Amino acid sequence: MENTTQIYGIRAIIEAIKAEKPIDKVFIQKGLKGDLFKELETVIRKNGINSSYVPIEKLNKLTRNNHQGVIANISPIRFYELEELVEGVIAKKETPLFLLLDQLSDVRNFGAIIRTAECTGVDGIIIQKKGTAPVTGDTIKTSAGAAFKVPIAKVDHLKDAVYFLQSSGIKIIAATEKTESSIYDVSFKEGCAIIMGAEDVGISPSILKAVDAKAKLPLLGEIGSLNVSVACGVFLYETVRQRS
Amino acid sequence: MENTTQIYGIRAIIEAIKAEKPIDKVFIQKGLKGDLFKELETVIRKNGINSSYVPIEKLNKLTRNNHQGVIANISPIRFYELEELVEGVIAKKETPLFLLLDQLSDVRNFGAIIRTAECTGVDGIIIQKKGTAPVTGDTIKTSAGAAFKVPIAKVDHLKDAVYFLQSSGIKIIAATEKTESSIYDVSFKEGCAIIMGAEDVGISPSILKAVDAKAKLPLLGEIGSLNVSVACGVFLYETVRQRS
Repeated sequence: MENTTQIYGIRAIIEAIKAEKPIDKVFIQKGLKGDLFKELETVIRKNGINSSYVPIEKLNKLTRNNHQGVIANISPIRFYELEELVEGVIAKKETPLFLLLDQLSDVRNFGAIIRTAECTGVDGIIIQKKGTAPVTGDTIKTSAGAAFKVPIAKVDHLKDAVYFLQSSGIKIIAATEKTESSIYDVSFKEGCAIIMGAEDVGISPSILKAVDAKAKLPLLGEIGSLNVSVACGVFLYETVRQRS
Repeated sequence: MENTTQIYGIRAIIEAIKAEKPIDKVFIQKGLKGDLFKELETVIRKNGINSSYVPIEKLNKLTRNNHQGVIANISPIRFYELEELVEGVIAKKETPLFLLLDQLSDVRNFGAIIRTAECTGVDGIIIQKKGTAPVTGDTIKTSAGAAFKVPIAKVDHLKDAVYFLQSSGIKIIAATEKTESSIYDVSFKEGCAIIMGAEDVGISPSILKAVDAKAKLPLLGEIGSLNVSVACGVFLYETVRQRS
């Protein structure tokens, strides 16, 4: 893992979480015990921090330092709160454009999407804390630095972001094959948020149920699916085209 | 390098070239001498095979086998001749769509572009022998198998392909920032070929001079450039939109 800042040790990580450092993920050694460890678990749970339990070999690979069984990856960027991001944008823009990513797992796709978002005037990207590719040095690099320019909010559940955006008057459009509507028949002219799904399974069924519109790209070949960062680019540029 | 078939040894490679195996690139140890080696150099030159001179350490990294100073990567797909490809397509389709890639160097971008080409009904991709990312196992994987479905032709000079396509009545459209024309003001309705440039330097100036039209994507942010596979997707889907 390239360039991600890491911190080690239970106490240091508890303090980092309490200080609201932008922690991307905490790796915890399986079978770890003790009061301090219990405290760490509590802090992680309370703050909705992404974590996973791994064998000690994995931790030893992540660092040569004395990690005491816990390593946290610090994100190189700061994340926004959903409400802060959405309300800030709506206050100053009549037809905002948001981008929601439903558990996109590939760092390079994520970076390319952030880059396209910057080029198409996306006002904010919203991702879910769990199951999403981390913002690493590779993400920043693939984004050509756009990760420092486009505000990104992390939420516990993407569906809650859908509801919040809808209650703020934003139309939610899902990029999905599971519809008869072509992208060219859907209007992106009003304030809207586009949702892109995960590389393998697309958008979660429960989120698909909540959206206002679904749109698919025509697929003229036999392969039947595009790279998600390419598909996202086509959706964002269709928005640019319709609004220009 | 994943999954690329390799052959080793001067004699074996000479025979492979003579048998017109789809050789992607030949790596030759610097300072190699002898009659057989001279014969190899001649065969490489006559057949326009992509080659480069490298230190022996590079060859030792490429294989653990006894390479005798020469390794050839065999492409997993067969390449078409330009004339064969273009004439075959024109014979059966009124408004063909070709895609020209000017020395694209990233294997994953190349794969994603082949995948998009398959999804948008591109009739053929034309690349230059030298300076282009090879078709490796990674390319095939990123293309989601599309590399087996979209015909690809390799030419010595991309400019010759431009002239040949023009003489066949195909309009050449360059995707470039070096123009005032927006992609939305250019017609993709007639038979055409879209040229995408290299990741770093874009389309070569000499090719830009030869094209029939130039088109740029609106860039609303500060970054000022998109990932080439994303930009290519937007161009190909604009063609799909205009033709639908």
